[in-house]
Amino acid sequence: MIQKNIYVNGIAHNIFVDQETTLAKVLREQLHLLGTKIGCGEGMCGACNVIVDGKLTRSCVIKMKRIPEDAKILTIEGIGSPLNLHPIQKAWVKHGGAQCGFCSPGFIVSTKALLDSNPDPSRDEIRDWFQKNRNACRCTGYIPLVNAVVEAARVLRGHANVESLDYKLPADGHIFGSDSRYPRPTAIGKVTGTLKYGGDLALELPPNRLYLALVQAEVSHANIKSIDTSEAEKMPGVFKIITHKDVKGNNRINGLAFPTNKGDGKERPILCDSKVFQYGDAIAVVAAYTEEQAKAAVKAVKVDLEVLPAYLSIPAAKAPDAIEIHPGTPNTYFIQPHNKGEDTKPIFADPNVVTSESFMISSRQPHMPIEPDCAFGFINDDGAIIIHSKSIGVHLHKVMIQEGLALGDDQLQLVCNPMGGTFGYKFSPTIEALVAVSVQATGRPCYLLFNYHQQQQYTGKRSPFYGTVRFATDKKGKILGMETDYDVDHGPYCEFGDLLTLRGIQFMGAAYDVPNIRGEGRTVCTNHAFGSAFRGYGGTQAQLFSEVAADVMAAELKMDPWEFRYLNCHKKGGKSTNPSGQDLDSRTYDEMLLAIKPAYEEALARAKAQSTPTHKKGVGLAAGSYGCGLDGPDSSNARAELNPDGTITIRTAWQDHGQGADMGAVGTAHQALRPMGVSPELLKFTWADTRNPVSGPSGGSRSQVMTGGAVRVACENFLAGLKKPDGSGYYTYDEAKKAGVPTDYDGTFSVPGVPLDANGLGSPFMVYMYGVCLAEITVELATGKVKVDKVIFNVDIGKVNNRLVTDGQLWGGVAQAIGLALTEDFDDIQKHKTMVGAGFPFIKDIPDDITINYFESPREYGPFGAAGTGEIPLCVPHPAILNAIYNATGARVTRIPALPERVLEAIKNKDKKKK
Amino acid sequence: MIQKNIYVNGIAHNIFVDQETTLAKVLREQLHLLGTKIGCGEGMCGACNVIVDGKLTRSCVIKMKRIPEDAKILTIEGIGSPLNLHPIQKAWVKHGGAQCGFCSPGFIVSTKALLDSNPDPSRDEIRDWFQKNRNACRCTGYIPLVNAVVEAARVLRGHANVESLDYKLPADGHIFGSDSRYPRPTAIGKVTGTLKYGGDLALELPPNRLYLALVQAEVSHANIKSIDTSEAEKMPGVFKIITHKDVKGNNRINGLAFPTNKGDGKERPILCDSKVFQYGDAIAVVAAYTEEQAKAAVKAVKVDLEVLPAYLSIPAAKAPDAIEIHPGTPNTYFIQPHNKGEDTKPIFADPNVVTSESFMISSRQPHMPIEPDCAFGFINDDGAIIIHSKSIGVHLHKVMIQEGLALGDDQLQLVCNPMGGTFGYKFSPTIEALVAVSVQATGRPCYLLFNYHQQQQYTGKRSPFYGTVRFATDKKGKILGMETDYDVDHGPYCEFGDLLTLRGIQFMGAAYDVPNIRGEGRTVCTNHAFGSAFRGYGGTQAQLFSEVAADVMAAELKMDPWEFRYLNCHKKGGKSTNPSGQDLDSRTYDEMLLAIKPAYEEALARAKAQSTPTHKKGVGLAAGSYGCGLDGPDSSNARAELNPDGTITIRTAWQDHGQGADMGAVGTAHQALRPMGVSPELLKFTWADTRNPVSGPSGGSRSQVMTGGAVRVACENFLAGLKKPDGSGYYTYDEAKKAGVPTDYDGTFSVPGVPLDANGLGSPFMVYMYGVCLAEITVELATGKVKVDKVIFNVDIGKVNNRLVTDGQLWGGVAQAIGLALTEDFDDIQKHKTMVGAGFPFIKDIPDDITINYFESPREYGPFGAAGTGEIPLCVPHPAILNAIYNATGARVTRIPALPERVLEAIKNKDKKKK
Repeated sequence: MIQKNIYVNGIAHNIFVDQETTLAKVLREQLHLLGTKIGCGEGMCGACNVIVDGKLTRSCVIKMKRIPEDAKILTIEGIGSPLNLHPIQKAWVKHGGAQCGFCSPGFIVSTKALLDSNPDPSRDEIRDWFQKNRNACRCTGYIPLVNAVVEAARVLRGHANVESLDYKLPADGHIFGSDSRYPRPTAIGKVTGTLKYGGDLALELPPNRLYLALVQAEVSHANIKSIDTSEAEKMPGVFKIITHKDVKGNNRINGLAFPTNKGDGKERPILCDSKVFQYGDAIAVVAAYTEEQAKAAVKAVKVDLEVLPAYLSIPAAKAPDAIEIHPGTPNTYFIQPHNKGEDTKPIFADPNVVTSESFMISSRQPHMPIEPDCAFGFINDDGAIIIHSKSIGVHLHKVMIQEGLALGDDQLQLVCNPMGGTFGYKFSPTIEALVAVSVQATGRPCYLLFNYHQQQQYTGKRSPFYGTVRFATDKKGKILGMETDYDVDHGPYCEFGDLLTLRGIQFMGAAYDVPNIRGEGRTVCTNHAFGSAFRGYGGTQAQLFSEVAADVMAAELKMDPWEFRYLNCHKKGGKSTNPSGQDLDSRTYDEMLLAIKPAYEEALARAKAQSTPTHKKGVGLAAGSYGCGLDGPDSSNARAELNPDGTITIRTAWQDHGQGADMGAVGTAHQALRPMGVSPELLKFTWADTRNPVSGPSGGSRSQVMTGGAVRVACENFLAGLKKPDGSGYYTYDEAKKAGVPTDYDGTFSVPGVPLDANGLGSPFMVYMYGVCLAEITVELATGKVKVDKVIFNVDIGKVNNRLVTDGQLWGGVAQAIGLALTEDFDDIQKHKTMVGAGFPFIKDIPDDITINYFESPREYGPFGAAGTGEIPLCVPHPAILNAIYNATGARVTRIPALPERVLEAIKNKDKKKK
Repeated sequence: MIQKNIYVNGIAHNIFVDQETTLAKVLREQLHLLGTKIGCGEGMCGACNVIVDGKLTRSCVIKMKRIPEDAKILTIEGIGSPLNLHPIQKAWVKHGGAQCGFCSPGFIVSTKALLDSNPDPSRDEIRDWFQKNRNACRCTGYIPLVNAVVEAARVLRGHANVESLDYKLPADGHIFGSDSRYPRPTAIGKVTGTLKYGGDLALELPPNRLYLALVQAEVSHANIKSIDTSEAEKMPGVFKIITHKDVKGNNRINGLAFPTNKGDGKERPILCDSKVFQYGDAIAVVAAYTEEQAKAAVKAVKVDLEVLPAYLSIPAAKAPDAIEIHPGTPNTYFIQPHNKGEDTKPIFADPNVVTSESFMISSRQPHMPIEPDCAFGFINDDGAIIIHSKSIGVHLHKVMIQEGLALGDDQLQLVCNPMGGTFGYKFSPTIEALVAVSVQATGRPCYLLFNYHQQQQYTGKRSPFYGTVRFATDKKGKILGMETDYDVDHGPYCEFGDLLTLRGIQFMGAAYDVPNIRGEGRTVCTNHAFGSAFRGYGGTQAQLFSEVAADVMAAELKMDPWEFRYLNCHKKGGKSTNPSGQDLDSRTYDEMLLAIKPAYEEALARAKAQSTPTHKKGVGLAAGSYGCGLDGPDSSNARAELNPDGTITIRTAWQDHGQGADMGAVGTAHQALRPMGVSPELLKFTWADTRNPVSGPSGGSRSQVMTGGAVRVACENFLAGLKKPDGSGYYTYDEAKKAGVPTDYDGTFSVPGVPLDANGLGSPFMVYMYGVCLAEITVELATGKVKVDKVIFNVDIGKVNNRLVTDGQLWGGVAQAIGLALTEDFDDIQKHKTMVGAGFPFIKDIPDDITINYFESPREYGPFGAAGTGEIPLCVPHPAILNAIYNATGARVTRIPALPERVLEAIKNKDKKKK
């Protein structure tokens, strides 16, 4: 340890530190400046940016020994505070720069450093700066951030008033609609670093809190012979070591398997007992007083394993000699056939029919939120265990874990924290049960923070699909039939693996009028990372397969891909049905395709003109859809509560993982409450909690439709209940109490979905969103490297609630689609455990030119006509990119990500074929 | 535990707390808002004041269960920050409101609440507010605080510009002198709550820190038969339990006894081994991960004691049957005779001589800083143990404890923290050795924070004197001789008890020309609280005795007390010597007495006019002096260092315990560096550290003289060394390095003091300060309660360095003298363990009317003529108050504090005598 004097935000600090400790840890754990976030923890994401003696510094990697005596450090807390925002922070709010908000402090500090040295940077200079300084954002696609910097710089230079950064309510007072840029309620907390995320709240637990560290498997498949904690238990600072023996219930997470699933859904242990099923599986938890002590004790726990063959892919798990990963359940544990219309065999056999075939493998895309997984828990005064986590399905997760822990309904409460993005991985329980069992076993508040390697290696991933799509058309290109055949690698745990497999049936070929389909999807158990939800869930993989297959079909027909799509797409006034045999709730494909046509033609001309012998430019198209809701019938609940101070609490379990639940709830409620003329600041958003009305999980773009619907109904009930009988307006809280009128109003919203039957037919969703995407790319022939130059994305997401939110969702989703198409994977457990290793897209990987065009069409089942938003950008742009590579090179990349080596190989294979 | 939402300084917090935890602990330990200080911890001092939903609230006593959901809390951090001070904070700086600064956040928050509700309060309303809200200040005498509130209110009302609160450097740039109100360098940190005190820094230690809790004796005298830690060691969270067996050295604190002391000075154990010597003695230290766990384990340590008779007073310890507290050393272990001039026996026997006798007992006055004792330590990267504490003698304490711990010179470093007042108790080591042995035994950073009961029961106290002073005068009242006889109750530990006893010899009758003295002082060991330094150290007790005796003599002579004093005082141009036979360094008594005469006469008239049958008014006088320095020869060292950035570090071990070492060093240095024209902000003060030059302890008002002298010399050497040979000015750092000229300059300052010889004669101090005080009081006859109405204090402290500092020292010292005279004691170990129980003076106990008049007279040995300041107000005002009680009632109170019951008893005895 050493003593050092430093100045932080103008305040002198005399600090006592381990020289090897990082500045970020000292700021957070010793000085409690929690606005400085730790994302990757290895200098790859910039969430921890601070300014040290004028220089932008990644505080998570700089050690205290390198901080000079009397260093002057500026953190987000020194830039501005909620009551005194800096213009950069105001611009961030105005442009919706904070979605999950976890990267915002780092970006804002970085912007401060940029504008201190360059008060008038160009957009390219801003992008260069963020690239150079590795500021990573996973939500926004970077565009609103650059917009915010440009506008903040203008204000700081005195070329605009600071008031120009403030939101102005329109004269009529509305905040719902595609013209609405009302800032989300959590924005100010996010841009000031004062909104506390799980890892921040953990550091604010009472001093008797325990740090949890996991003993994890370092092999992918093994039998456990013994677990010896005796030596570790004696180590200093160890409070207790928890193993499966401490788990009071059946030690299983309930995967809620379908009845048709060959497994019972109870194969996932909370703490491994007999077997290790994947790398990273939790074998024991060390609860200790400090991180250092917990980590030291982890190393001393001895686990004796009998290592088994690891099945890390579909072919390996399906090999004839493969043993059952879960003994008693076949590795292929769920099969869903698809039989729509006529049998396709005769069609494909017809000599007048043109056919095509496309085989693809999709990736195990990692979600890569900037904030690694974290949770904490404690026993409350009623003796219940309270778990705070990044859960995006608190009621769902409660059901999934309570039996394993032997906790009754009153004994377990789940709450969602402000969180730095999930993009769906938290549709699965991750560490909730581990924290809960630790709290049970120790009686203390406990917290578990994953580092980024754990985040990558031991949270769910997008499940790869392996499969084939075949089209049959008439000579003019009109689709007559489609055949599909695919396997889903869902890792070792079945939870929702059956559900996911249905998405292949529901979305392959979804944009087109395909009268006859035959196909089959299968869910396969492997020893790779367990599958979990991810934006576009299944629709992503399905439409990658079918939209590339559509391009292959067009090529086979020597037809322009746009023409092929326009010919076959569902059309306004048509009678076509989607792959599930269901009518479409909105028919805008033809309109969106027509609208994109001029740009498509310009792009083709530009690609031709600008291609060089070394750099080939290409243009790709894709179309697609996604459903909003749980598969089949769905419902949600909400409550509107009038408070004594005149505020109205919109109480739901609409989990906010950065997508904008806060704005969704407040925007919808405000619209519903318009007759009352309530000011939007009076509406209070609540963080999801199992004590709140059951709103269902926040996934599958269902929340705006389902919980938004419930909010609307609750608010309508609220208005009806509080309307004074004499028509003179609405009761105040005191008046209502006096009149004996209730102040709290529940609302329930249900939709009559019909789940897929044995033939894969039904009406699984009552609301869908639709999109058509155009991508322009450049391929560097020498390296195979692909760069996306420009994207146009025409979307039909019903009526827009809030433009800042939907723009952000769509820009950010396109960015993830680019990563999905070109760089992101979690295939190599070691190489892909870091953000950079796993192909995280930084700002220069994402074009500054992404245009979103809304084709607003009100939905019957959407509140005020709104559909969902989040999934559609992960369902359409990535095949457009793959198709653009083909357009540029004539080569088909059949496995994503289209890494340079795969592109080179595809080009080589094409050239071979030619020869 | 519960979850609660609160807003702190406008920021939303979602907190997880034990309902029984206090708000102060949650703010400090969970939210790390360290500006909210914990003083008494039981709602008596207001250091923890915050505003909760608009209401001023003592956060140390309000439990979280009483904080409403969504409460809006304002702490000092929300009022203003160093770069953005609130007008109240600016006013606090301007008026020198922050001395030690520990109470400042609480006062400023309290002022905010006052001015929010009453924007134009009168002085009385301000005093009522602070009284009602129990805002306790131990440094300032409250007057500058009321001044600051008045001026802040004026600015907030818009009746003055906020700029009027800013310091303005005079045109010639000087900051040294009685017109200087340059704010002390630490002021901004103090008024914003951002200066970290020991208990704050402890919470910023790395997470592997251990909390220490003491196993303390609950009897005052016992033999230890056994200490059993086995059960406690097994308790959760206990890292180690440390006993005397873990102490590597001789387990003794070296009391640095005089050779003539009958003890060897090594009787004080670090951790008790064979005996308990006083209540609170430390028997073991529990080092645990949390406070809760440490305290639980303390209760489980079993100590088997053989209880011995406790000698809690001089008579008990001197009783013939009393056993030796330290076997082998007599309980009366040091005797100092006083033989000045002729033998006094014949004088007193002379029938032409008038004699008088006065017996008094003084109190065990507790220092009552607002901040309880605290320390922390760790092992640095060189393997040395670093102890941070409230030590006001880092080099001294190192010598005193290092042998007991077996630590070599390079193995122990002591550093003083910013501290919330000591007033001298930290001239003794308190918990340094306990923390050091804990760090040695655990290898971890450790911290030990006393609660207020421990502060009262187990830190040093002012040692009571028991004794008699007799005067002999001629018929006209001219003093011919004095006889003294006194015992000093120094508690069980001898450290400096011999030195203290000399002060009786040196200061009894110090104001007067007493040609012949015979006397004896004795130091006695008891089992009450150990004696330590306290402002006025010995001079306080000596001059209480002799100034009351002077009044008794005047009464005997039927002479006016002023006349008696003026007749006998040392006079300008006179040849009189002080009790040590030394010439006076300044002869201002006669001038100060003459100056006070009109006020004295007015006061007498007023007392007569305003006395009623129920309330008697009275007027009292006293005069006295105190020495600046260690007894005998003294020296100090300092260094002036030119830094690369042009700042100059004034490096000393001038310990700042709130008295203004920062300003003392900077003011003196700036004056010395005037030829260079340096701006005062460029001068950097350093916290005392054993690696700094040896400056000696900060006690006995020696620092301004001795260390100020060393600073002057260092700065003169600095100027001489850095002056360019061509006369063109001074080298910059870079120029000096280039020219090979040193940038660091040492300075040593020594004085040729002569310690007392066997007759009590010598020249112990080369610089003294002098004072004359007038007190006006009211006695409520029904209750005996005394109220001080007005004080005039004429002082000669040489030349004034900084007026804000000296005014504050003198006002605050007078307030402590009022407490000393009337309310403060630590006699009853249980009753007096709280601030209120021990008679802490709140604002309404201190008059708003205290006038300080400076009689500036430059001192030969003082830097730029300055003497010390801090002790004189504890040497003169309290006997003036005692004499005023006599003036009002005709009754002599012979024991302080003059509690109402003692005053009533004295009146009753007087009335009895009359009868």
